[in-house]
Amino acid sequence: MKEFLEFELTKEFRDRFQQAIDDHDHDFIRRSLEDIKPADITALLYEFNSEESKYVLDLLSLEIRSQIINDLDSESRIQFLKVYNSSELTEVVNMLDSDDAADILNELPIKISEEIIAGLDAMLRSQVIDLLRYDANVAGGLMAKELIKARDYWTVVQCIDEIRKQAENVTKFYAVYVVDDQDKLLGRVALSKLILTDSKTLVKEIFDDDVVAVETYQEDSEVAEIMKKYDLESVPVVNVQGHLVGRITIDDVVDVISEQAEEERQIMSGITENVEEDDSIWLNTRARLPWLLIGILGGLLSARFMGFFEAELARVTAIAFFVPLIQATGGNVGIQSSSLVVQSLANPSFVDEGLWQRLLKVFSVALINGFFLSAIVYGVTWIVFGSGILNLVVSIALFCVVLFASFIGTITPLILNRFGFNPALASGPFITTTNDLLGIAIYFLTIHLLL
Amino acid sequence: MKEFLEFELTKEFRDRFQQAIDDHDHDFIRRSLEDIKPADITALLYEFNSEESKYVLDLLSLEIRSQIINDLDSESRIQFLKVYNSSELTEVVNMLDSDDAADILNELPIKISEEIIAGLDAMLRSQVIDLLRYDANVAGGLMAKELIKARDYWTVVQCIDEIRKQAENVTKFYAVYVVDDQDKLLGRVALSKLILTDSKTLVKEIFDDDVVAVETYQEDSEVAEIMKKYDLESVPVVNVQGHLVGRITIDDVVDVISEQAEEERQIMSGITENVEEDDSIWLNTRARLPWLLIGILGGLLSARFMGFFEAELARVTAIAFFVPLIQATGGNVGIQSSSLVVQSLANPSFVDEGLWQRLLKVFSVALINGFFLSAIVYGVTWIVFGSGILNLVVSIALFCVVLFASFIGTITPLILNRFGFNPALASGPFITTTNDLLGIAIYFLTIHLLL
Repeated sequence: MKEFLEFELTKEFRDRFQQAIDDHDHDFIRRSLEDIKPADITALLYEFNSEESKYVLDLLSLEIRSQIINDLDSESRIQFLKVYNSSELTEVVNMLDSDDAADILNELPIKISEEIIAGLDAMLRSQVIDLLRYDANVAGGLMAKELIKARDYWTVVQCIDEIRKQAENVTKFYAVYVVDDQDKLLGRVALSKLILTDSKTLVKEIFDDDVVAVETYQEDSEVAEIMKKYDLESVPVVNVQGHLVGRITIDDVVDVISEQAEEERQIMSGITENVEEDDSIWLNTRARLPWLLIGILGGLLSARFMGFFEAELARVTAIAFFVPLIQATGGNVGIQSSSLVVQSLANPSFVDEGLWQRLLKVFSVALINGFFLSAIVYGVTWIVFGSGILNLVVSIALFCVVLFASFIGTITPLILNRFGFNPALASGPFITTTNDLLGIAIYFLTIHLLL
Repeated sequence: MKEFLEFELTKEFRDRFQQAIDDHDHDFIRRSLEDIKPADITALLYEFNSEESKYVLDLLSLEIRSQIINDLDSESRIQFLKVYNSSELTEVVNMLDSDDAADILNELPIKISEEIIAGLDAMLRSQVIDLLRYDANVAGGLMAKELIKARDYWTVVQCIDEIRKQAENVTKFYAVYVVDDQDKLLGRVALSKLILTDSKTLVKEIFDDDVVAVETYQEDSEVAEIMKKYDLESVPVVNVQGHLVGRITIDDVVDVISEQAEEERQIMSGITENVEEDDSIWLNTRARLPWLLIGILGGLLSARFMGFFEAELARVTAIAFFVPLIQATGGNVGIQSSSLVVQSLANPSFVDEGLWQRLLKVFSVALINGFFLSAIVYGVTWIVFGSGILNLVVSIALFCVVLFASFIGTITPLILNRFGFNPALASGPFITTTNDLLGIAIYFLTIHLLL
């Protein structure tokens, strides 16, 4: 084994590389990239602009170049490919698997993608045209057309011949799919089984007919869930007639899972566009401003609302002291509740408890938490601020806020989910702002009634 | 293909099944589980208590029983296995792959796990003893010992014979690992290549020496990152001497990725224990209370702090109106900033920009956002509340809060990361409470200086 060291991109190497690009130092570039894996070259290229990156890629073989372009994240690639003309792109796309080719074509302006499609090899062209019909986020949009098909009446040796014929097109494969003469999926034979079986055995004697398949229209998150649940490294895709039309490999699904986690984090932190810290100042500002504005609007509404209670505030200034306490607790309770609901919605294999049962439980937890927190606040305020009716009012308001925020936090993701929105939306900004407002309303209404 | 329908667990079926368990209706239970995949039976069993689940499992074959017990999540399994005695457990563990066996043994009380280990088949026993030396969250704790090894001087047909010998122990395999006589890893041969190569060819002529391996001590998140980056379906594990000691398959890593995402969501929403909404009321309360208490503490500190400014508040009551606005904005800006840092820390392949460059950028974004938000607040307060110096004070305070919260949000995850804590901790409760307090402090200091 060549020593495997994960390539570490240092500032020194980056600067030296920049120098080489500026000097058009072919030799240095070729030599230094020789022992680096394509995935690491991709990471390196993120450090340079499109023209510079293209200059580097043009020095590499077409195969590695295609692999690197395929590795880029979609947003960077859209920018980067602007410096390529369509004949250069055709060369690259021709090297890719059908699913990767379709992904790139989907990102390009329609005119350019039409030109590229026209220039593709006949087989890849027809595969890509078929794939472009599907949305990117369903099984059909995730699958590749490259797979190895065998008829059930073949022998093992015929099967291996077929593999030999197709091996050039199909890169990663772990199983042969068994179909009938109409291409209806019958089952699969693992490669390991094929190796161990006598070559004259018929496929129908050894294939596994209890195979998990997904249909073209199933959502990517559903496909991920199924592959995770049944520990699959690849899954065949069938159309509504049950005909085998493609296969999805686990590496694509790993990307789906990571992207979902990333997206959810962004939703939870109120970032409205897919940005990274490394992106430009302007992009960073734009992604963050919308939710900050909503927060500001909420704050201004609170201010207006508190204005109605100016008389009470003027009479007992200490009322103001507890606004942060009430507001923060409302927000915290809301986020916790909605998070737990989002989590349970993401786990659809369980029997649903039913809305009322669920609310009853949420209510019980809120009662205990609310009682406990109120008691503590009553005790501490009594010690720190001395005795007084305000302590009691704050504790009662806090108790009510915990109950209401739990309710809102539980119900919002359920409603969003019912109407087809991502329930994770409720784990973030929306719940926080609502509960901030609600908390303050409850607090001042309690004061109005009791003080 | 048997029709593949994802099994849907309905309330009717659950109730009918409960009935069957109560009536000891073997036939119904066996019949209804016949066509259900083990992973679906696992989901079904979550609906019943340990004794009921054991009753059902005892009706199934040992193979399926073991698979289901292996499928359970760790927490449920710890509870569930309490109704098994050690000879029953030995039977089950004997059916598992070494990595799964080690996971279960790690969860059991030491006395029971020792009894089980003593009863295991010799080969599995030595494998398991080797695996138990590693922490669960490093490559060594994630790997399985089952793999197929070939010497580089073998022929393809010798290789296939070896596969035949080992195939019973090794369930999923996609490649044969090539080692020298000291078991030092030299490379790998994909099964697909083995199938297509003439049987008299030597392994050394066809094996791929450019293979990615991980070392036993590498963290699971690192292993996940490497497998994702290089699109691997399995990765060999070597010890410090470079000897092949195991392999990790992608399905284990998919679990690692999902668990990390889950854990991060819980951190972000201030839930301190791994709970689900379905868990008991007491567990739910206990997981949520600690962070709510910290929030309450922050709120009480705010109250105490605002107490120092009672005179100002009594003089200009309207000061109180803008406390929610200031507080919410501080929290929101802080979370956004820390989230972006956490995200960039999770992406270690990039050249680090350097602390000062990073802070400069954060500062620029904060300047733009702060300026924009302050201007809006100044305008709106002027329209709604009329002109006055307070509008100006609020806007200036808001501007400062945005700058400071960005700074805290950026620096906290970097500090946590430096000291070896999970930086995601900074995307949640901690940042929010700090920024709540900070925001109020800045607001009142501005008032003290300017009003």
